Amino acid sequence: MKNIMIAQSGGPTAAINATVAGAISVALSSSEVGKIYGAQNGIQGVLNETFIDLKEKIRSSQELELLSHTPAAALGSCRLKLKDLKKDETQFEKIIDIFKKYGINCFIYIGGNDSMDTVDKLSQYCAAKNISDIIVVGAPKTVDNDLVGTDHCPGFGSAAKYIGVTFSELERDCHVYKTKAVTIVEVMGRNAGWLTAASSLARINGAKGPDLIYLCEPVFSTEQFIADVKAKLERQDAVLVAVSEGIMDENGKYISEQVQSGMLDAFGHAYTSGSAKVLEELVREKVGCKVRSIELNLMQRCAGHIASATDITESKMLGMKACQCALEGQNGVMAAIVRKSDSPYVVEYTAVPVNQVSNKEKKVPDEFINEHKNDVTPEMVAYLLPLIQGEVNQEYVNGIPKQIELY
Amino acid sequence: MKNIMIAQSGGPTAAINATVAGAISVALSSSEVGKIYGAQNGIQGVLNETFIDLKEKIRSSQELELLSHTPAAALGSCRLKLKDLKKDETQFEKIIDIFKKYGINCFIYIGGNDSMDTVDKLSQYCAAKNISDIIVVGAPKTVDNDLVGTDHCPGFGSAAKYIGVTFSELERDCHVYKTKAVTIVEVMGRNAGWLTAASSLARINGAKGPDLIYLCEPVFSTEQFIADVKAKLERQDAVLVAVSEGIMDENGKYISEQVQSGMLDAFGHAYTSGSAKVLEELVREKVGCKVRSIELNLMQRCAGHIASATDITESKMLGMKACQCALEGQNGVMAAIVRKSDSPYVVEYTAVPVNQVSNKEKKVPDEFINEHKNDVTPEMVAYLLPLIQGEVNQEYVNGIPKQIELY
Repeated sequence: MKNIMIAQSGGPTAAINATVAGAISVALSSSEVGKIYGAQNGIQGVLNETFIDLKEKIRSSQELELLSHTPAAALGSCRLKLKDLKKDETQFEKIIDIFKKYGINCFIYIGGNDSMDTVDKLSQYCAAKNISDIIVVGAPKTVDNDLVGTDHCPGFGSAAKYIGVTFSELERDCHVYKTKAVTIVEVMGRNAGWLTAASSLARINGAKGPDLIYLCEPVFSTEQFIADVKAKLERQDAVLVAVSEGIMDENGKYISEQVQSGMLDAFGHAYTSGSAKVLEELVREKVGCKVRSIELNLMQRCAGHIASATDITESKMLGMKACQCALEGQNGVMAAIVRKSDSPYVVEYTAVPVNQVSNKEKKVPDEFINEHKNDVTPEMVAYLLPLIQGEVNQEYVNGIPKQIELY
Repeated sequence: MKNIMIAQSGGPTAAINATVAGAISVALSSSEVGKIYGAQNGIQGVLNETFIDLKEKIRSSQELELLSHTPAAALGSCRLKLKDLKKDETQFEKIIDIFKKYGINCFIYIGGNDSMDTVDKLSQYCAAKNISDIIVVGAPKTVDNDLVGTDHCPGFGSAAKYIGVTFSELERDCHVYKTKAVTIVEVMGRNAGWLTAASSLARINGAKGPDLIYLCEPVFSTEQFIADVKAKLERQDAVLVAVSEGIMDENGKYISEQVQSGMLDAFGHAYTSGSAKVLEELVREKVGCKVRSIELNLMQRCAGHIASATDITESKMLGMKACQCALEGQNGVMAAIVRKSDSPYVVEYTAVPVNQVSNKEKKVPDEFINEHKNDVTPEMVAYLLPLIQGEVNQEYVNGIPKQIELY
């Protein structure tokens, strides 16, 4: 019999628990599997030996379904990166000792590129030491959609749906008054603009806005931004702008750092603010009309109530794939999605060597950004649209979504 | 035959269009009614004679249903307050002339306490001038829930549901790491804490957070706040705080103005920020742990996708009631809700003299706030809970909610 351990790492999303549920479902259906453990707070929980007996915690298919619809990381998360294998093996020895102590044969780690680094190092260590009875496998997760090796990442589709829906509602809200007004909405993404691009989905049923979309990949020019806003204001009252958290000037300096560096708060500290807040002040200064900034903040990554059904299904499938790979002995791979076509939307689930994924970032390619660098192209919309299809059937109790707690 | 005019005013909500739909449905079913006009951008649209033929625009019960589920103000809004009747009658003369020109017999104005001031003045003017063939009626609307004369306001229940659901998701998100961290979430409400109180609904199914809730009614002490946060941090890793936009110190000065007054941005201007941002800086200074602030911003008032079914139904009923009152000749009243019991939840629809409503504000009473002024009481939860029950059955096209546009 094989014992399995599952853990989650990095920033939580609305879909990461569905990957756990998928892995559990394959483990439960396999006659090879004995224990199914969850490590609390990722690899940190392995080191601390804080484990959850998942067979004990999840006793019905209803509870497994509930886990799929519960946002954030039900097993907890961490941001611990393992040390360089060549310099210090002690962490790896300790982890393998703990795995042996608990009879763990399969370790499934769900996370982004830092977490895939853990999968890579740990699987390399096992291979180098000829530890053939411990298989380490990764499953992708990130709202930012910046993992290479997979068409897209679980968590991204739900965040994209939240962003598309929210922009469609903000678009209605911003247009009720006959007043010149600019609303600047900051979307997550420090190094990749995928989430900001999802604001374009608000227009899919004919709405006009967002009127301007700035991803973090092209150089951001504040002069061009003000010119773009002024041009829009000449033709309409309200202007809705989507902007990435991580927009940078030509010198590679974050826009969010520019104004803030000149500012001190009442305690004499540098004041932190987002890119949208900086642009808000800029519009107030250079345009003079009514202006406000909005940050979608944590809501965009944890809004389970508006998760994409496609995303939740794919997230489950990737958990299943990862568990299958682990049971089949495929050490050092990450479960991944290959897109066969946009319309009809067809995907296949596969496994890629995790060393092709770890510590890399997938940026938005040029052909997905328009010539003026202030919007996305139809190719981007075609890429995004399938990922937000379908609404989840969440169970509400007392008007609030029901959620499961594992610890 | 009577012609009807409907208009919307003040800040938009997720439920205000359901009031329009309710009024239209009664007008359509009455054999007395001829034309049904919508004035674009509230009373401003009346003065500008920018009217929409609503019978032309809404041709099926499906479209009427779609209007009920479309957030923001489909007829547009304004913030125009009419002049003092005793000082200047010209505006009133002009409005009545326009009503006469278009043969308007019933004017239904949907809005908050400023809008009820318009209803009050206009209905008084008609009475004083013996204009008996023009009836002016109000229907309540405000996310803030601060109107007197009605148990609660349409729009509030949906915003409360958004806030309860969002806090339940943020609560999950905040607890994934084993790190001391404070998350401060600012909720709308400059003068009344009803919306901030709705954060308590996140706990209804057993979740722990939010851990601290500060409404704007009691005096806010930054010293007590820091002491409260420190006490919570001693017992747990993550602390989730809900705070009203309008919290004030003992001198009646907004907390949001305190720190910001000492700050200038890069252009030498006073920097505007919310109460949560100010408290974030304070926690960074006085506690030193990881801290972030979040503003629910416009999303809390326009999130049609997570509207309360109870709210949408009541909003429709109040539109119907307002239209009935207008057809029955009840000049100068506002449609209102009387709560008969919390559990089972029973309400009746009535009409109250609008002069009892206009320019007044309903604050949260003392018995709804706990002794330490850092949470709400079970009585508050009992008041709030019925208002968020039920989920709306929104139609999604391409993964985004379908909406109707009237102009």
